[in-house]
Amino acid sequence: MSVNVKFKSDIEIAQEAKMEPIIKIAAELNLTEDDLELYGKYKAKLSSETIQKLQTKESGKIILVTAINPTPAGEGKSTVTVGLGDALHKLNKKVMIALREPSLGPTMGIKGGATGGGYAQVLPMEDINLHFTGDFHAITTANNALAALIDNHLQQGNELRIDQRRIVWKRAVDLNDRALRKVIVGLGGPVQGVPREDGFDITVASEIMAVLCLATDLQNLKQRLANMIVAYNVDKEPVTVADLGVEGALTLLLKDAIKPNLVQTIEHTPALVHGGPFANIAHGCNSAIATVTASKLADYVVTEAGFGADLGAEKFLNIKTRAAGFKPEAVVIVATIRALKMHGGVAKSELANESIEGLRAGFENLRKHAETIQSFGLPFVVAINKFITDTDKEVKTLLELCEKYSLPVELTEVWEKGGAGGISLAQRVLEVIEKGQSNFSPLYQLADSIEDKITTIVQKVYGGSKVEFSSKAKKQLADFERFGWSNLPVCMAKTQYSLSDNPTRLGRPTDFTVTVRELKPSIGAGFIVVLTGDVMTMPGLPKAPAALKMDVDADGNPIGLF
Amino acid sequence: MSVNVKFKSDIEIAQEAKMEPIIKIAAELNLTEDDLELYGKYKAKLSSETIQKLQTKESGKIILVTAINPTPAGEGKSTVTVGLGDALHKLNKKVMIALREPSLGPTMGIKGGATGGGYAQVLPMEDINLHFTGDFHAITTANNALAALIDNHLQQGNELRIDQRRIVWKRAVDLNDRALRKVIVGLGGPVQGVPREDGFDITVASEIMAVLCLATDLQNLKQRLANMIVAYNVDKEPVTVADLGVEGALTLLLKDAIKPNLVQTIEHTPALVHGGPFANIAHGCNSAIATVTASKLADYVVTEAGFGADLGAEKFLNIKTRAAGFKPEAVVIVATIRALKMHGGVAKSELANESIEGLRAGFENLRKHAETIQSFGLPFVVAINKFITDTDKEVKTLLELCEKYSLPVELTEVWEKGGAGGISLAQRVLEVIEKGQSNFSPLYQLADSIEDKITTIVQKVYGGSKVEFSSKAKKQLADFERFGWSNLPVCMAKTQYSLSDNPTRLGRPTDFTVTVRELKPSIGAGFIVVLTGDVMTMPGLPKAPAALKMDVDADGNPIGLF
Repeated sequence: MSVNVKFKSDIEIAQEAKMEPIIKIAAELNLTEDDLELYGKYKAKLSSETIQKLQTKESGKIILVTAINPTPAGEGKSTVTVGLGDALHKLNKKVMIALREPSLGPTMGIKGGATGGGYAQVLPMEDINLHFTGDFHAITTANNALAALIDNHLQQGNELRIDQRRIVWKRAVDLNDRALRKVIVGLGGPVQGVPREDGFDITVASEIMAVLCLATDLQNLKQRLANMIVAYNVDKEPVTVADLGVEGALTLLLKDAIKPNLVQTIEHTPALVHGGPFANIAHGCNSAIATVTASKLADYVVTEAGFGADLGAEKFLNIKTRAAGFKPEAVVIVATIRALKMHGGVAKSELANESIEGLRAGFENLRKHAETIQSFGLPFVVAINKFITDTDKEVKTLLELCEKYSLPVELTEVWEKGGAGGISLAQRVLEVIEKGQSNFSPLYQLADSIEDKITTIVQKVYGGSKVEFSSKAKKQLADFERFGWSNLPVCMAKTQYSLSDNPTRLGRPTDFTVTVRELKPSIGAGFIVVLTGDVMTMPGLPKAPAALKMDVDADGNPIGLF
Repeated sequence: MSVNVKFKSDIEIAQEAKMEPIIKIAAELNLTEDDLELYGKYKAKLSSETIQKLQTKESGKIILVTAINPTPAGEGKSTVTVGLGDALHKLNKKVMIALREPSLGPTMGIKGGATGGGYAQVLPMEDINLHFTGDFHAITTANNALAALIDNHLQQGNELRIDQRRIVWKRAVDLNDRALRKVIVGLGGPVQGVPREDGFDITVASEIMAVLCLATDLQNLKQRLANMIVAYNVDKEPVTVADLGVEGALTLLLKDAIKPNLVQTIEHTPALVHGGPFANIAHGCNSAIATVTASKLADYVVTEAGFGADLGAEKFLNIKTRAAGFKPEAVVIVATIRALKMHGGVAKSELANESIEGLRAGFENLRKHAETIQSFGLPFVVAINKFITDTDKEVKTLLELCEKYSLPVELTEVWEKGGAGGISLAQRVLEVIEKGQSNFSPLYQLADSIEDKITTIVQKVYGGSKVEFSSKAKKQLADFERFGWSNLPVCMAKTQYSLSDNPTRLGRPTDFTVTVRELKPSIGAGFIVVLTGDVMTMPGLPKAPAALKMDVDADGNPIGLF
């Protein structure tokens, strides 16, 4: 293969692909049209009755796809997730993929979709990357309806004695809009509301997104919504959605959004694409309902978690498995030689040049994540996503390193070849599962103190030496104990680029301290967010946003989406 | 019928009704499944190809339903629209209804839906009143994407030299949220954007809503979006969406929202429910595409316009017919005896008592609207929506008054009886149409000056004596002349409660002056908004919002929606 090959863009490949009617895809899963709520010919929600009915069925085996710490070189985790699903499908396994829904904000801002790439994509990618079935719009609406109800409560006499300086519920838009990060609302005089500081998060950072993705059914969703903290009163006691009495209305707004969305890959493998919370201030996985439902419909479920294994997989394994009540059977850790070289100190501009030294140094990042997965009692396979710039010597070196440290490894070419490029990976994953080596347990007990949970993650997952708590965090720990929140799992908000809390320390840093600056109770989601640095919950647009190139052609077909 | 009868609520009636699969409803219109994009079993969008294909077909006859000036007593315009459609359906006419989509904001705030009432409703009312097919969410998103792109333009160097004090594009949410009326955005320092005053409108007040509802196809939509004015530069020249170069992206976000939504009434009459702009700062009618498409699919289309005939019908006839290129055949003017009594000075608390005098006085409001419809060259029928509190003597008086002034009139009972309660109205409307008396023309020429257009409406539609322009409005008129906007129709923003610009002057006020305070160019929509008073473009929530009663039952069925 030559470097000069002109690759087709993702949207070109997607638009050339011929989809099957979603009814036909559903039929392969023994679902009839009555089990579906169609959204056009190629998308459907599964009905509540069907999801309910499936719960008593035996579960298939869940395979988690994670990765090394992300770098600007790109790893292709979603692409491998889709490609592995397609490969299992090609091997005639009954398989489903479970993926997150993309957020519209980044789509309008920075080129780059979230539905896989090349010949390993879920379709219809244009719809999935735009409004899809409206789930995120429903979440935005519920989020902002709650905000309006809080401000209305202030305006109408403030019976709950909410301290307007301590309202923690922010508004949301599913867009990149930096001007909304910090705002003042309620201006214009007494009839226009109570002036106060406020801010907007991108919808994927709304607690409602995390709640929807951890809820097990509609009633559980309602309970979680009721538990959400919106403010503190003048006595500094938490005020919840239940205190406002609007959990029913919010649940009503989310009654369709909670149903997972059935789509297909280019190779007609069925996929549930549903939910997409942030992987820092939330847990970064598709909905629990999608993963569990997929496991009832198929023998194998391939799913992914956000960012690297230190964030996404850790939360998948410590938070999501507990909330949803399942155990995974195996993990795939995605890496590329390019990204490993960056972890080994090679600059992005130098990635096209061979660097055995850089690769060796960067391999340590991969090795750490493999150790982490082992510490959860899970077998794994390393998937090296091949790039055309990888030299034979680099590939050979990496395979030798994996062998030296007993890391099972397979090369994949799913971007170029779809499922055919992931057959050896699929076979290796099946082999690992058949050996039955999974002995999964979360890394900490819920009864551990919040400090201990954090320390366990910092030491066992990040490889750090210790944790320091700011004076604010220490005060919060005491409050949380008093409010009865100590038994919740923790959700670490840390830079995704490094195992440490310093984004410039790539590779495998050691002997570092993680500083906990602040805690944030997400009581509806059911976890305590642990902030170790600045977390951006509302991205901005770049100088030349992707929106400038977007258009529709004369027939209404999308142009300029990736 | 006794006053003590316990009526079922709208939602109870709706949930007891048995819907037909929408595919079956479509089949009656000679549409196949390939013409539809299904949203579940009971909602569908018509495909772009189908809409395109229908354009060459002959058009059916369009019947506009309008009303007297609204009062707190209620008139039931949407209910009559649905009931008349059902009655024509019962008479075996090939008929379609075209209605606006309701906004979620008022749904969460104040009990009262917008999908008809009683046995004259469109279904599934819960879905239509909540997220429906996502059209309003797409509009909200396009509106706010544009706002984010404007603020990003400021942040990234402001090449267009936008005067940040003169940005006229506001953000939007489809909620009642008074705290967002006046806000300051961009706070927090240089990396968080440029601080400036801003505000949010409810989505139905977004110019994009008006644009979508007047666009004739996707390319026309794109052109209208490109024409929208977002700001003025430091030289006070308008800055448009085209200057920002993002009309393609906005069109892409609206590519599905532009397709009309097919649903059915309780009696299985097909209905297109699509779009819903404000009737003050916009033109207050369902989409042009829905009305025109309905006229290609059916021999009769029953559609409505917002508020009374002075606002909704005037704009339907002067703005929408021109943009969409059709002529209506007949008009129905809805009134109730209760509402007429209020126009005649009877207090709301006294409406249950007979008041012949009040009725006689209030009848003048109805008579004025009938004259207005005649001035457009259109035949009409007055529909008196019967209430159980109407006395025989009141009914007799009203019929005599109608006879005296030669107003064709029919009593309807569509709320209680559905189509069966509207048969005589339907027969009378058919009679009027068969006589072929329609000689429709708009009331003014586009070449008339903006002042003359306004004066024509004030004198011929409102019955006022003259128009005064504030100094601000006069200066704007000069600017608009210079910008080449004088040939656009005008869109009057006036109180809906009175024919005058004073909401307390009910009945038929005379010898009044209308004061034009300010003009607002909606160049994408293609009209100049004429502000004659304060217009609320972001409603607030009441002390006890409807949201407090909303919920889902154990099976996920909505509770507490009307």
